Amino acid sequence: MQRTLGTCYYPEHWPETIWAEDAARMVAAGLTWVRIGEFAWSRLEPQPGVLQFDWLDRAIEVLGKAGLKVVLGTPTATPPRWMVTRHPDMFAIDAEGRVRGFGSRRHYCFSHPGYLEESKRITALFAERYGQNPYVAAWQTDNEYGCHDTILSYSDAARGAFQTWLQDQFHGDIAALNAAWGNVFWSMEYNAFDEVELPNLTVTEANPAHVLAFRRFSSDQVVAFNRVQVEIIRAHSKAPISHNYMGRITDFDHYKVGDDLEIATWDSYPLGFLEDRVGADAVHQRAYARQGDPDFQAFHHDLYRAVGRGRWWVMEQQPGPVNWAPYNPSPLPGMVRLWSWEAFAHGAEAVCYFRWRQAPFAQEQLHAGLLRPDSADAPAIEEARQVAAELAEAGTVEPAQAPVALLFDYDADWAWSTQPHGQGLSYFGLVFDVYRSLRRQGLSVDILRSETRDFSGYKLVLAPGLMHMPDELKQALATADAKVVYGPRSAARDHDFNIPTPLPPALPGLDVTVSRLESLRPDMPIAVAGGGQVTGYLEELEGSADVLMQTDAGVPIVMATGAQIYCGAWLDEAGFDALLQKVAGPAELTLRNLPEGVRIRQTATEEFWFNYGASTVETEAGSLPAAGVWRRLLD
Amino acid sequence: MQRTLGTCYYPEHWPETIWAEDAARMVAAGLTWVRIGEFAWSRLEPQPGVLQFDWLDRAIEVLGKAGLKVVLGTPTATPPRWMVTRHPDMFAIDAEGRVRGFGSRRHYCFSHPGYLEESKRITALFAERYGQNPYVAAWQTDNEYGCHDTILSYSDAARGAFQTWLQDQFHGDIAALNAAWGNVFWSMEYNAFDEVELPNLTVTEANPAHVLAFRRFSSDQVVAFNRVQVEIIRAHSKAPISHNYMGRITDFDHYKVGDDLEIATWDSYPLGFLEDRVGADAVHQRAYARQGDPDFQAFHHDLYRAVGRGRWWVMEQQPGPVNWAPYNPSPLPGMVRLWSWEAFAHGAEAVCYFRWRQAPFAQEQLHAGLLRPDSADAPAIEEARQVAAELAEAGTVEPAQAPVALLFDYDADWAWSTQPHGQGLSYFGLVFDVYRSLRRQGLSVDILRSETRDFSGYKLVLAPGLMHMPDELKQALATADAKVVYGPRSAARDHDFNIPTPLPPALPGLDVTVSRLESLRPDMPIAVAGGGQVTGYLEELEGSADVLMQTDAGVPIVMATGAQIYCGAWLDEAGFDALLQKVAGPAELTLRNLPEGVRIRQTATEEFWFNYGASTVETEAGSLPAAGVWRRLLD
Amino acid sequence: MQRTLGTCYYPEHWPETIWAEDAARMVAAGLTWVRIGEFAWSRLEPQPGVLQFDWLDRAIEVLGKAGLKVVLGTPTATPPRWMVTRHPDMFAIDAEGRVRGFGSRRHYCFSHPGYLEESKRITALFAERYGQNPYVAAWQTDNEYGCHDTILSYSDAARGAFQTWLQDQFHGDIAALNAAWGNVFWSMEYNAFDEVELPNLTVTEANPAHVLAFRRFSSDQVVAFNRVQVEIIRAHSKAPISHNYMGRITDFDHYKVGDDLEIATWDSYPLGFLEDRVGADAVHQRAYARQGDPDFQAFHHDLYRAVGRGRWWVMEQQPGPVNWAPYNPSPLPGMVRLWSWEAFAHGAEAVCYFRWRQAPFAQEQLHAGLLRPDSADAPAIEEARQVAAELAEAGTVEPAQAPVALLFDYDADWAWSTQPHGQGLSYFGLVFDVYRSLRRQGLSVDILRSETRDFSGYKLVLAPGLMHMPDELKQALATADAKVVYGPRSAARDHDFNIPTPLPPALPGLDVTVSRLESLRPDMPIAVAGGGQVTGYLEELEGSADVLMQTDAGVPIVMATGAQIYCGAWLDEAGFDALLQKVAGPAELTLRNLPEGVRIRQTATEEFWFNYGASTVETEAGSLPAAGVWRRLLD
Repeated sequence: MQRTLGTCYYPEHWPETIWAEDAARMVAAGLTWVRIGEFAWSRLEPQPGVLQFDWLDRAIEVLGKAGLKVVLGTPTATPPRWMVTRHPDMFAIDAEGRVRGFGSRRHYCFSHPGYLEESKRITALFAERYGQNPYVAAWQTDNEYGCHDTILSYSDAARGAFQTWLQDQFHGDIAALNAAWGNVFWSMEYNAFDEVELPNLTVTEANPAHVLAFRRFSSDQVVAFNRVQVEIIRAHSKAPISHNYMGRITDFDHYKVGDDLEIATWDSYPLGFLEDRVGADAVHQRAYARQGDPDFQAFHHDLYRAVGRGRWWVMEQQPGPVNWAPYNPSPLPGMVRLWSWEAFAHGAEAVCYFRWRQAPFAQEQLHAGLLRPDSADAPAIEEARQVAAELAEAGTVEPAQAPVALLFDYDADWAWSTQPHGQGLSYFGLVFDVYRSLRRQGLSVDILRSETRDFSGYKLVLAPGLMHMPDELKQALATADAKVVYGPRSAARDHDFNIPTPLPPALPGLDVTVSRLESLRPDMPIAVAGGGQVTGYLEELEGSADVLMQTDAGVPIVMATGAQIYCGAWLDEAGFDALLQKVAGPAELTLRNLPEGVRIRQTATEEFWFNYGASTVETEAGSLPAAGVWRRLLD
Repeated sequence: MQRTLGTCYYPEHWPETIWAEDAARMVAAGLTWVRIGEFAWSRLEPQPGVLQFDWLDRAIEVLGKAGLKVVLGTPTATPPRWMVTRHPDMFAIDAEGRVRGFGSRRHYCFSHPGYLEESKRITALFAERYGQNPYVAAWQTDNEYGCHDTILSYSDAARGAFQTWLQDQFHGDIAALNAAWGNVFWSMEYNAFDEVELPNLTVTEANPAHVLAFRRFSSDQVVAFNRVQVEIIRAHSKAPISHNYMGRITDFDHYKVGDDLEIATWDSYPLGFLEDRVGADAVHQRAYARQGDPDFQAFHHDLYRAVGRGRWWVMEQQPGPVNWAPYNPSPLPGMVRLWSWEAFAHGAEAVCYFRWRQAPFAQEQLHAGLLRPDSADAPAIEEARQVAAELAEAGTVEPAQAPVALLFDYDADWAWSTQPHGQGLSYFGLVFDVYRSLRRQGLSVDILRSETRDFSGYKLVLAPGLMHMPDELKQALATADAKVVYGPRSAARDHDFNIPTPLPPALPGLDVTVSRLESLRPDMPIAVAGGGQVTGYLEELEGSADVLMQTDAGVPIVMATGAQIYCGAWLDEAGFDALLQKVAGPAELTLRNLPEGVRIRQTATEEFWFNYGASTVETEAGSLPAAGVWRRLLD
Repeated sequence: MQRTLGTCYYPEHWPETIWAEDAARMVAAGLTWVRIGEFAWSRLEPQPGVLQFDWLDRAIEVLGKAGLKVVLGTPTATPPRWMVTRHPDMFAIDAEGRVRGFGSRRHYCFSHPGYLEESKRITALFAERYGQNPYVAAWQTDNEYGCHDTILSYSDAARGAFQTWLQDQFHGDIAALNAAWGNVFWSMEYNAFDEVELPNLTVTEANPAHVLAFRRFSSDQVVAFNRVQVEIIRAHSKAPISHNYMGRITDFDHYKVGDDLEIATWDSYPLGFLEDRVGADAVHQRAYARQGDPDFQAFHHDLYRAVGRGRWWVMEQQPGPVNWAPYNPSPLPGMVRLWSWEAFAHGAEAVCYFRWRQAPFAQEQLHAGLLRPDSADAPAIEEARQVAAELAEAGTVEPAQAPVALLFDYDADWAWSTQPHGQGLSYFGLVFDVYRSLRRQGLSVDILRSETRDFSGYKLVLAPGLMHMPDELKQALATADAKVVYGPRSAARDHDFNIPTPLPPALPGLDVTVSRLESLRPDMPIAVAGGGQVTGYLEELEGSADVLMQTDAGVPIVMATGAQIYCGAWLDEAGFDALLQKVAGPAELTLRNLPEGVRIRQTATEEFWFNYGASTVETEAGSLPAAGVWRRLLD
């Protein structure tokens, strides 16, 4: 596999006279890809039906002729102002009932039929005109579905579509819905599907089954919206189709959207994410303020490798300070190179820097680019050039399966957010804590979706917090060759958010039952025998399985029979590390003791070392400077 | 008086085939009472006018025949979905103007005339059908008025009813309202009652007189709503009528609702309340996370003894982790027994555990019951059985007046919340701080309403923060045999929230005037001579009364003439303890120095000791384990 | 210039029988001025068109005859209830879309044409009736424009007026607007002015150019609203016209409103401001809880001296605890005197205490007055009497230009708030930090508006954070005799919020370019060589100018060529002090090392010393007690 670089460019932002020079500088910097078009609707159709695609024709021509491959984005994330005159009710409505209006971007409700038609129309115009264009080498649908909290809409259109969706799910049988949701509980029973409201603005919490159904519906609406574009493009073009997912967004099922795409891409803003989304404490945020979290990018790399079934890119790579986080520091020198190489180490086909030139106007004017607003080089372009040169040296690479698999499931995330039980508990947080522990100890990880049934080749599979586990998944894991770690909360609910009987987790071949569970204040951790702590969440376990770990007071927290291991607690770093150490030996995994901030990733032929720390660290393999990267060929 | 146990049961949640076994297990566990019906409307009237009461007939029959006494609840807290189609404007509107819609419970506005009629209709159906049923031994109206912040509604119906209420209060004289409220202040004068808006969404704070009137009106609406049900039930049944008040809700006058009932009951969730409502600091929350606050339940027990004029129950007793607090830990072993015995020590007739079996569906699926969702015993049922056995031993008990009375007044709470003057200051907080001090020093307390005029039998009466004191109350206290402690802020306002002249408190026989007052930052406490601190609130006192306590700088904070004592400061623990120690001797009260977490309560014949601590403590009477209970007969 | 005292009085609040006695007591206390009328509309026009001005005639007569000069306020801040029946859409709408209704004050939208007419009508009634009244010696328009966040309104009226305003700004050319705002960015281009919405409730942040334009429009609406009243009054009266600005409000351009007035006045609440608006940390708030911030009042004094072009008053001076801050402590004894003298030291013509008698009713019943609600003297009146006596001794005073000028600009404040880039960063905060540093080192300061072009007489001029600097201003500063300190962020944007090319600051005669910038977490300060720290915000500077200050790591933060100095960092106290120390010598300024809490202010003939500390401090000039004031004649 070739590893390539690229950038995001907006020809409509700049005088046509400088396009050619921009293109030449991109090529000179070693870039292969240029993404364009995704916000340009108002320039392509300035008034309804009045099309002006000629400038885009010319831009593609200029870029392509310079030797660049174009990724062409459909502009549906930014419908022009005239569109909202035509469809005044096309906006999403937030949970408080407020219209999310025109004036920025993503101002549409996924359930609005009129806007869906407009989306088809503009996509068809793109596909028909550029489907055979020799320079258009890839496509992007829309832009960052879900960014700015735009998946859940409480509009009339969404309510109607939700009712139809439910009718479909329950085959028109409202009694089945009432039974599945337990609506008898507070006399919440419906007599007809058109009585089902959206689960916002209820007096106290809505039925979790109702909320979860709405989350599933909302995700399905995104899948459907995206699929319509994909089908139109595919009818006219052989180029691969992608979407650029935004980091730390779990409001729709990325796998299901990905099923319709050839390539998954994601937008990686390590510093912005650390301030805004990682959920780390202030000490950690301070320590990595100029580097980003040492595991957050890697997690997404591994996730989108799964979403893209092996084919994935970083479509937007932070090249300097961003504009949108609470605080927006500059990265340490070398970090742009490190982030780029880390993506390749995890299997990326391409890394594209966002954006080519910093815009002097509008919302993102303080978002760095490879060039400054005055067209001078910004610091990142030098690091990009270095990566390009190093890539030329490094040659191609073959993907390899990791020894460890971690299941990550969007439905489980919605279930946890519907019912966290304790303040601050989230599925993403739990899975990421487990992922961190694997990485701290030097392991390379594959992320798998919950539909996976074949686990061959893995020594260890982890399924923490997977609240709903179909029987087929339970069977597949029970019969896998790998060691399997479940819990906490795995298999805790049935499909419709009810507690099943027999009580969870009810795993084949593992006699463990969660007889009661509790959430804990952050200031009341429970000491684990041998080190580490239970924090936040704890289950009472009973059954005949062996006790693998217990609290200082002798309460079992991890129980196992053979390769099947159930953990009934959310553990701190030392706790999860200890759990891994217990299972590593039997799983024939070798753990490493890495210095703080150092991470390793192996491909089939290479071992990469990355230092996210702000200063040089001593490792078993020598002295690794801040922002340092080692690439070593495996024997 | 007999002491009994019970539970809350939802036959509509379970197959009819297991009702008999459930009933038998309840009886076997020593339970007397079973409450049913209060959320079952959609099963009793699945469509408007279509009645299906036969299953409830059978449920009562099964439970009654098994030997249980039924408490039957009217289902008006959960009107079915078809109801909101029939009355689309029946919802409460919150202070931000948002409709509080269908999908959970308590989705009605107390001022909506249409829903009031529906409430009458369903209550009449219940009363007519079961008024003479031999197994229905008590009634409950609705469920937890005020839970989920449901008293204040800013709907059109509420505005109209408020205008009518004001017209009545001011005998149709709008000039009288303008004068009473001081509406001249910012040209807020009205020309007619239908010009008076609800006091929400004003540009800056509304007139406090306006706000207080709205709070009083809102409380009166609850009283009226409840009374309608009581009158209908009483016309058909001789069984006593109750309502289950929710802890730490002061948005309506519980005494006035209680005046229409035979029995006051309340719902006691010690762990949920500690996390959510007590208002304690994190250290306290941590220390009592598995036990609950040592005084919070006792305060409510004493309060509802007053509300029920002696007759009161715990209708819902937490039996394990709940689902609704920020964190939901399990109670220490023994706490369910302790909470039960504490209720009896304060005079409860019955303690009912909520709920019989944990529901596997809907909003409260993580709320523990006496049984697990799979019908196995949960830990609490064993403690319930132990209490049942101990009750059989202990026999009946006679109530006794406590030596100390503490006035608690809902109107004062509304006045403080209308005008706290300093962030975080509340009437409940002040009264509870005083109550804690009394309890820390071993005293049993009666809570009295502000309409009390006969204080005979009390050695000490306290009226902290009672912002409006009618002359008759002032006179009654001035002439009581007891020592009387007033302030801070007692008698600070007239009926319509004006500062009276002569300046407050203007108490007969006590020459003390509050010449100025201030609120204090939490970080600027003022040291009290001899120990303790003023925190949050301080009055400047002048007058000829004796200075009983003063600050280190010599500023008087407590002044007294004979038995009349005025305290012009909010004190910390040491401060209030010191104040009590000064008045205890003259009041002929003996104070005790109890260990942290230990509390005492005396009945006419018994002295109870409770250890809320998480470990064994040494007391003057021996070693008391965590969650320990002593019941000792007095000489 | 004569220095005088006064008070704010509400004859409509009190029985007419006590007016004469009140007036006599005012005169006896040494007061000259009495402000009346500004909230009295409902008493002057109790019903539409029904006028009752006779009582106001009599009140003016009584006060005037007693020897007081009347300041008469137009009552437009408090339209009566009948007004909102007549104009149901006259309310402002908040950014969340909620109507800001009747029931307090300032319940009008500046853009509502109907209310503007009503405002004209009532002003004309005032002007015609009292324009020639011998006792009406000054006027006030409305009351505290902008208090309670009332400048920005998102009403239909505001939207329409904004569209018209934009049409005017861009001469009817929508393409010019699109170009100026960079609306191409996210396809935000408009085809017509009536497509431009208000910039609230967008999905993510609105275009900063859009927001800034709305802020400018909103300010212009206030200027226009005020001008209408001024023109009417001026047509009938020769008395000077004022408006009482509220402290720490920057939502409209006070200079532009001031251009239409003879006198600027402001309302000074040192303790309330410290709790609510200064933005100090808790340690500082604790230290000055009873004194107020040592620089906040002085800053406003200097600001309103500029706004009033030399003529300014304190119209409302806090005389004891207020009612509206989170905490409302009493001032230290002596502070009312100190605050009064400090105003005079900065050039005030008058200081008026708010209010004469504490009102026992309505919203401000816990706001102290010179009298208590029972008409007894409150503590402040004694301090007022002392000031009156001291003023009689001190005689008149001549104004003098300060040696240092600090530019303060409302447009820059809106630009920063539109794009702070880092959490908590604000223009006011930056300018105030610089002001504090000047004052800590003993300097007297003039505040200048950004339209200033003549800087003669100043030794040092500072223009921190002035985001837009027209070329004429750059030229004027480059050629001034003074040392000039710019930055951070000075000249960072053009008029329409775009980053200019060449990159900022592009100052004539100073080769410094901000090549990149970052905002910093509060926990990641950067050490400055020689002491002090960069906090919150840092620019990367390049260019050939001399490096005046740098970080410990050698990164330049202050660069200079001759008298032109650019600072690219937000510094802490030690940092700004060090910067001043570097420029003081060349600027021929003598700095002093004042003790904590001590401040100095010089007039032409006097030097004042003030001790804001809570205890006595030793100074070079002797021992200065808490709340102490020295007035010394200069040689």
